[in-house]
Amino acid sequence: MEKYEKERLRQRIFDTVFEANTRQGKLFDICLLLLILISVGMIMLESIPSINARYHKVLIISEWILTSLFTIEYGLRIFSVKKPWRYIFSFYGIIDLLSILPFYIGLFFPAGKFLANIRILRLLRVFRIFGLTQFTHGKNVLVLGLKESRNKIIVFLSFVMLIVIVIGSIMYMVERNHPESGFTSIPISIYWAVVTLTTVGYGDISPVTGFGQFLASVVMIIGYGIIAVPTGIVTMEMNKFSNQEVPKNTEMCPSCGDDYHLDGAKYCKTCGGKLNY
Amino acid sequence: MEKYEKERLRQRIFDTVFEANTRQGKLFDICLLLLILISVGMIMLESIPSINARYHKVLIISEWILTSLFTIEYGLRIFSVKKPWRYIFSFYGIIDLLSILPFYIGLFFPAGKFLANIRILRLLRVFRIFGLTQFTHGKNVLVLGLKESRNKIIVFLSFVMLIVIVIGSIMYMVERNHPESGFTSIPISIYWAVVTLTTVGYGDISPVTGFGQFLASVVMIIGYGIIAVPTGIVTMEMNKFSNQEVPKNTEMCPSCGDDYHLDGAKYCKTCGGKLNY
Amino acid sequence: MEKYEKERLRQRIFDTVFEANTRQGKLFDICLLLLILISVGMIMLESIPSINARYHKVLIISEWILTSLFTIEYGLRIFSVKKPWRYIFSFYGIIDLLSILPFYIGLFFPAGKFLANIRILRLLRVFRIFGLTQFTHGKNVLVLGLKESRNKIIVFLSFVMLIVIVIGSIMYMVERNHPESGFTSIPISIYWAVVTLTTVGYGDISPVTGFGQFLASVVMIIGYGIIAVPTGIVTMEMNKFSNQEVPKNTEMCPSCGDDYHLDGAKYCKTCGGKLNY
Amino acid sequence: MEKYEKERLRQRIFDTVFEANTRQGKLFDICLLLLILISVGMIMLESIPSINARYHKVLIISEWILTSLFTIEYGLRIFSVKKPWRYIFSFYGIIDLLSILPFYIGLFFPAGKFLANIRILRLLRVFRIFGLTQFTHGKNVLVLGLKESRNKIIVFLSFVMLIVIVIGSIMYMVERNHPESGFTSIPISIYWAVVTLTTVGYGDISPVTGFGQFLASVVMIIGYGIIAVPTGIVTMEMNKFSNQEVPKNTEMCPSCGDDYHLDGAKYCKTCGGKLNY
Repeated sequence: MEKYEKERLRQRIFDTVFEANTRQGKLFDICLLLLILISVGMIMLESIPSINARYHKVLIISEWILTSLFTIEYGLRIFSVKKPWRYIFSFYGIIDLLSILPFYIGLFFPAGKFLANIRILRLLRVFRIFGLTQFTHGKNVLVLGLKESRNKIIVFLSFVMLIVIVIGSIMYMVERNHPESGFTSIPISIYWAVVTLTTVGYGDISPVTGFGQFLASVVMIIGYGIIAVPTGIVTMEMNKFSNQEVPKNTEMCPSCGDDYHLDGAKYCKTCGGKLNY
Repeated sequence: MEKYEKERLRQRIFDTVFEANTRQGKLFDICLLLLILISVGMIMLESIPSINARYHKVLIISEWILTSLFTIEYGLRIFSVKKPWRYIFSFYGIIDLLSILPFYIGLFFPAGKFLANIRILRLLRVFRIFGLTQFTHGKNVLVLGLKESRNKIIVFLSFVMLIVIVIGSIMYMVERNHPESGFTSIPISIYWAVVTLTTVGYGDISPVTGFGQFLASVVMIIGYGIIAVPTGIVTMEMNKFSNQEVPKNTEMCPSCGDDYHLDGAKYCKTCGGKLNY
Repeated sequence: MEKYEKERLRQRIFDTVFEANTRQGKLFDICLLLLILISVGMIMLESIPSINARYHKVLIISEWILTSLFTIEYGLRIFSVKKPWRYIFSFYGIIDLLSILPFYIGLFFPAGKFLANIRILRLLRVFRIFGLTQFTHGKNVLVLGLKESRNKIIVFLSFVMLIVIVIGSIMYMVERNHPESGFTSIPISIYWAVVTLTTVGYGDISPVTGFGQFLASVVMIIGYGIIAVPTGIVTMEMNKFSNQEVPKNTEMCPSCGDDYHLDGAKYCKTCGGKLNY
Repeated sequence: MEKYEKERLRQRIFDTVFEANTRQGKLFDICLLLLILISVGMIMLESIPSINARYHKVLIISEWILTSLFTIEYGLRIFSVKKPWRYIFSFYGIIDLLSILPFYIGLFFPAGKFLANIRILRLLRVFRIFGLTQFTHGKNVLVLGLKESRNKIIVFLSFVMLIVIVIGSIMYMVERNHPESGFTSIPISIYWAVVTLTTVGYGDISPVTGFGQFLASVVMIIGYGIIAVPTGIVTMEMNKFSNQEVPKNTEMCPSCGDDYHLDGAKYCKTCGGKLNY
């Protein structure tokens, strides 16, 4: 009967670390939320020279402690899920891994540590604990709208990429004899073209010759028209999905950890495993 | 019969300071409009060093006078309303308080005084005196559209917040060895990420390494797509409300001072108090 | 019969300077188009120091000639129209005046001369000669869409104005002790708020304190949402007018010079004068 | 029978260099894709001073080789097409020429060489080899939407052009006595107006006088409204075309090299030549 014991333990751990609608699951999620926020705050503080100089030791020790906790949690998740590999290569599984890995990389390459802030993305999962189905609904309209317009947006981005290379090359040719303009190579000029077309406009690189400024004006006015295209695409697609119902179920699959199953669903939509409730 | 006398006085004061469709109410509102504009103009002038040096005394004295008038008006509003606490904690009640409080705070912390410009928001109430129901209508379509899309926009903003922290951390890691780029800490890098994603692009912080510029280009192009999302949301919601009728009644509730009641309404939609007309 | 003679002359002048569908009218409009382009180009060249130093005399003389021609043309327009005052205070009448007035003002205040470039707006009228009814149609959809959304846009702009004053005052309070940030007075801070909310972002003024940068980030993200509102309004209104027919008549009223009358109209829609055809 | 032989050779070359649905055609397109990417990469590397200094010889020689290959390919295309002049003056024909011409110009004017990056636009044709009809479909909705709104966009751009000249002239008048602001001539001021209206905002030119900053604020807020117009136009037109079917045929016309014929079409929609399949 040992196997049964282990199975029950596994089930209890699963209910705690994955589910949000049991009491201990809710408590766990809230603790996790706080620990993530604290650890992200600490990494930020460590990056500020004046604070790091004073509290270096405190920050390092608490990072050790927090990362150990996250590592244990990651272990428990792998242990409690029925199909560990499915979990590891799922969206949340990769984020969970990316939120502890940088710390260990940081032991060898100090700068790598700051990547650990990717763990803030884990909050996407913690949104569930607020039971805000309206939020969830809103989120899904966005996600569905973006998914549906993916192809159009990829074509659009490829087109922008080609345009930007052509513009960058032409501007480099025009401005290359005026090093004070900042157009020192084609890759830099392409960077300028992106900065200009997206209307960001830092001003670290800007044309100084009359012809260069004329061309830049043309580019900006083109960018004006281009900015309209993604807006049109997303608005169009979002309109299609705005009236559609979205499942409000926050239960997670015990096999792969996926969520957002239909109400009354008995099997996971992603891996086919049996759902608990 | 003294109580009745007091009640009549209260009623007359209410008609003057709150209502816009009586003669004395209209006159009061126009005076208020002018006084607010004058006082805001004076605070602006005081902030200009050359003007402050010359007219310091005149400006200080007139500020004393104007703030006294606003304080008296605030007292009259509390006195004439039937449920003072409801008024004090209503939207306009808080703005009315915020427009006199900074002056008194300014006696102790000089800089606080400039907050008094919040009183310009009181003009939102004075819009009524123009009897521009079309304006009001327009305003309400905007307000309704924004209210309805609140949830979607909160989800969207949370998402932007997470994205911005991740981008800031990565850019800090890439650019930290080049202090001339300005990426001196993660909070600063997050500030840069906001400046870039919103396409503001001051240029006080901008990447100098090739890889940093490549990442920045990716961020800008993402921002290009992201800018489309709120536009889509607001357009969608505003379309829903564009044909809907909006009450044109500018009467205010004598109990809590709330406005925009339905035509023919007998009780306040917010506090349930009886309306006058 | 002298009066009749004068009337015929007036009619012939009117057909030449106002109409676009007679042969001499078309010729006149093309000449006018060229003269306007030449004169605008000359004013531009005069503003470039190196060119002005060399060709000062040529430029001055040709400006004299061109302005004389435009003055004569203005006189002919007043003479040939039946209700001169109506023409003088119409949209095109004011532009016609503004395109010669700066030159005469320039005799006393040299800088005033450059205002003469307003005459480029006269090209709006010359668009007719291309007989591009599709263009005209397109233009009118834009104009109608903008006109209809005027009220909503005025409310929106008033609101932006109030917001910008509040933000400017708060930022001035936060950044006033750091003159290197550029927030030297409240008007300057309001200018910064406009530059930031509209996502222009010059970078000549930008916050340097941590709290100031945090507030600026909030302002930018608000601006992100705000940019969606006019887009929504204009899209909404333009959709309404996109299918509507627009008159293709380019004939002008002989009394006041107004155009775009309905096909078959016998009286001017603006001044009630009789139309020729 | 020699003529027949030549015809068969011509046909086989056509199938290779123009078609994408035969095996050798697909192989050819993939090779072409790689060669274009390599050659564009090389031109970029050559523009970076440090890399050019070290690998100048290697880069020059490989450019010679690649351009020779592209020249041969261009010759084969002209040879294999039935109506060479039609091909030469078609959209792709011009791009094919522009991608080899700059190299030969570069022998006389070194800077011209960098224009060769225009060849990246040839990738537009290579998109076909992925057989991504969905992509193609997406692309065509964009193209159709833009084509249909062409007239409205031209009117809109003309209007922006006029506005920008007027704004530039006024700002020059206001700021000309403050050379540190950068408004040194009207053309420069017009460049500033474009940079500001499109919300790019480099900050290399920005007003310093109070009145100039006030006018700039007005311009920015106008720009805010103007940015809404192209978005509205494109969204409107794209909506019309979003449900329309688009031919998925990638076959090219053997006479002029045009693609996107209707399924089952027997004659080219552009030149009327007979299609192969």
